[in-house]
Amino acid sequence: MSVTHPTGLPATSRAWHLVARPKGWPTPDDFALREIPIDEPGPGEILVRNTHMSVDPYMRGRMNDVKSYVPPFALDEPMDGGAVGVVVAVGPDTPEYRPGDHVTHRLGWREYALVAAKDTGAVNPDAAPLSAYLGVLGMTGLTAYAGLLRSAAFQEGDAVFVSGAAGAVGSQVGQIARLKGASRVIGSAGSDEKVRLLLDEYGFDAAFNYKNGPVAEQLREAAPDGIDVYFDNVGGDHLAAAIDSLHVHGRVAACGMIAQYNATEPSPAPHNLPLIVGKRLRIQGLLVSDHFDLRPQFLNEVGGWLRDGSLRHRETVVPGIENAVDAFLGMLRGENVGKMIVSLDD
Amino acid sequence: MSVTHPTGLPATSRAWHLVARPKGWPTPDDFALREIPIDEPGPGEILVRNTHMSVDPYMRGRMNDVKSYVPPFALDEPMDGGAVGVVVAVGPDTPEYRPGDHVTHRLGWREYALVAAKDTGAVNPDAAPLSAYLGVLGMTGLTAYAGLLRSAAFQEGDAVFVSGAAGAVGSQVGQIARLKGASRVIGSAGSDEKVRLLLDEYGFDAAFNYKNGPVAEQLREAAPDGIDVYFDNVGGDHLAAAIDSLHVHGRVAACGMIAQYNATEPSPAPHNLPLIVGKRLRIQGLLVSDHFDLRPQFLNEVGGWLRDGSLRHRETVVPGIENAVDAFLGMLRGENVGKMIVSLDD
Repeated sequence: MSVTHPTGLPATSRAWHLVARPKGWPTPDDFALREIPIDEPGPGEILVRNTHMSVDPYMRGRMNDVKSYVPPFALDEPMDGGAVGVVVAVGPDTPEYRPGDHVTHRLGWREYALVAAKDTGAVNPDAAPLSAYLGVLGMTGLTAYAGLLRSAAFQEGDAVFVSGAAGAVGSQVGQIARLKGASRVIGSAGSDEKVRLLLDEYGFDAAFNYKNGPVAEQLREAAPDGIDVYFDNVGGDHLAAAIDSLHVHGRVAACGMIAQYNATEPSPAPHNLPLIVGKRLRIQGLLVSDHFDLRPQFLNEVGGWLRDGSLRHRETVVPGIENAVDAFLGMLRGENVGKMIVSLDD
Repeated sequence: MSVTHPTGLPATSRAWHLVARPKGWPTPDDFALREIPIDEPGPGEILVRNTHMSVDPYMRGRMNDVKSYVPPFALDEPMDGGAVGVVVAVGPDTPEYRPGDHVTHRLGWREYALVAAKDTGAVNPDAAPLSAYLGVLGMTGLTAYAGLLRSAAFQEGDAVFVSGAAGAVGSQVGQIARLKGASRVIGSAGSDEKVRLLLDEYGFDAAFNYKNGPVAEQLREAAPDGIDVYFDNVGGDHLAAAIDSLHVHGRVAACGMIAQYNATEPSPAPHNLPLIVGKRLRIQGLLVSDHFDLRPQFLNEVGGWLRDGSLRHRETVVPGIENAVDAFLGMLRGENVGKMIVSLDD
């Protein structure tokens, strides 16, 4: 970080590279923090010093060389992902921004990012902490909002089950369901501490630790009258249990199947899929990019709940870009509470 | 059948009873053909001599003691299912019918059925053969029609893959897709003879014998540009292959998972369900009873295609009520071509 352009702008940035494609669980050896050159911003471009970056489950999928909805990470290239930061330089003919403005963009995993202004969104640091725009007011928040209301077609009075419920998306799904009039909100998580958080802080009606016993049994106890909606962050046993407990015409928003991401063996897919037929269940895959049209409504409604204190959120903030891979791996292992964020502030 | 009421009406009927709950594949020992008493029709009732009865995959599910969308068959009681027949006696205050009229109803698996007139549908034997009302113009036809157009939200130009494509539902799905402007119709079946039938008689663009190699590979060859819709009669490997080949925003109508009905071990459920998320696939369970509102439109449109010869159908008719269980077991093994029907005519 000692190199600068003659203008005083930084000429290099540290950036995390994928250097090997993980088989199963990733290890630190699959990644390397390397210096990359940073050009000065051209027309329509801004140079951003990232203050926070996001590590998310979907990034694991991008580490495989598989054609998918987002291209895989290239080997020996910087990775990318959600980030928020402060504008340090603005190119010619770029009236949208001035130095000192705050933006969200998609070039995380690095200290400095040269981005097209059109690929960024302005952020108001006075309305909410900057990190909120990577979580509760960002893509994770919109995922929860659109997934529950649109993909799962939530209706007032529905009983809602959420897996990974202490996570960034899950905790918000459960709270939105409660605030929108769910008859019962049930969550699962991977530790007794997280279960207590669901009950005491996020207002879930019931919650269980999936490591304490078979998911299907624990769900039946937590929701003896069954469920109408399942918001799936996990797949596997959880999806099977939900299929068992769903009512006729029940709906599943398939947001993630983290239980299966690192499986190298054929994974424990649900044995009871035939129930989809008789119960006329609907499983709808969910990706936030289909739902950007909901963003104004989402920011308005969820922003209001944040301000009046009716919606709570937590973050796990890991400081230092050099710890980003550890933060990512910890998130995959479920060590975070709420949204996992890496702060890059000095 | 020698016993009659003083009125000359039959006082008994042979009826198939479930006498043991099958584990895995049913065997003939799980069933018994027994005599049951037949009352004379009371007010609002009619006595029907069944001429044809239906054997269907969903009946296997009803042999398990599992709460489902239709109650399980009771042990040592007559089974039921779709049937068509001729009215032989009409109770008091039952102006809807006269002896000699033809009706469809739900009390198959027996020679004579005493049914409430309100639970029957009149049938015109001059417009189509009676057996057609159990198949191409009956519940199987409506299943194909509603499943493709509503559950799978078929659109003109879609590439459509159908499993069990030589079966009653599958062959009709493929033809409706073709007649509605599919860009490509692909079918799978369990014998080379059925594959030829799909290509030569039903107008599929491509077809393969799933026993000749991995389904995923054969589907990729048959649909190199992928598919938009999968009509699932099979589950298991077929569903996994479809998930691989489906485009973003692809849709699955889950009509049956016959591959998994008789599984006693955890069945070969798809290993690739996580693709549902990234591709934003939709899987919608399908049961015809949700779609009776489409029946007039269905009879009109499909009836027209039948009359002008653009839609073809086949039946496998097994004569004699004493052969009904063999017909049912043969249908589960895929020995039928088109709708499997048992004729009870003298």
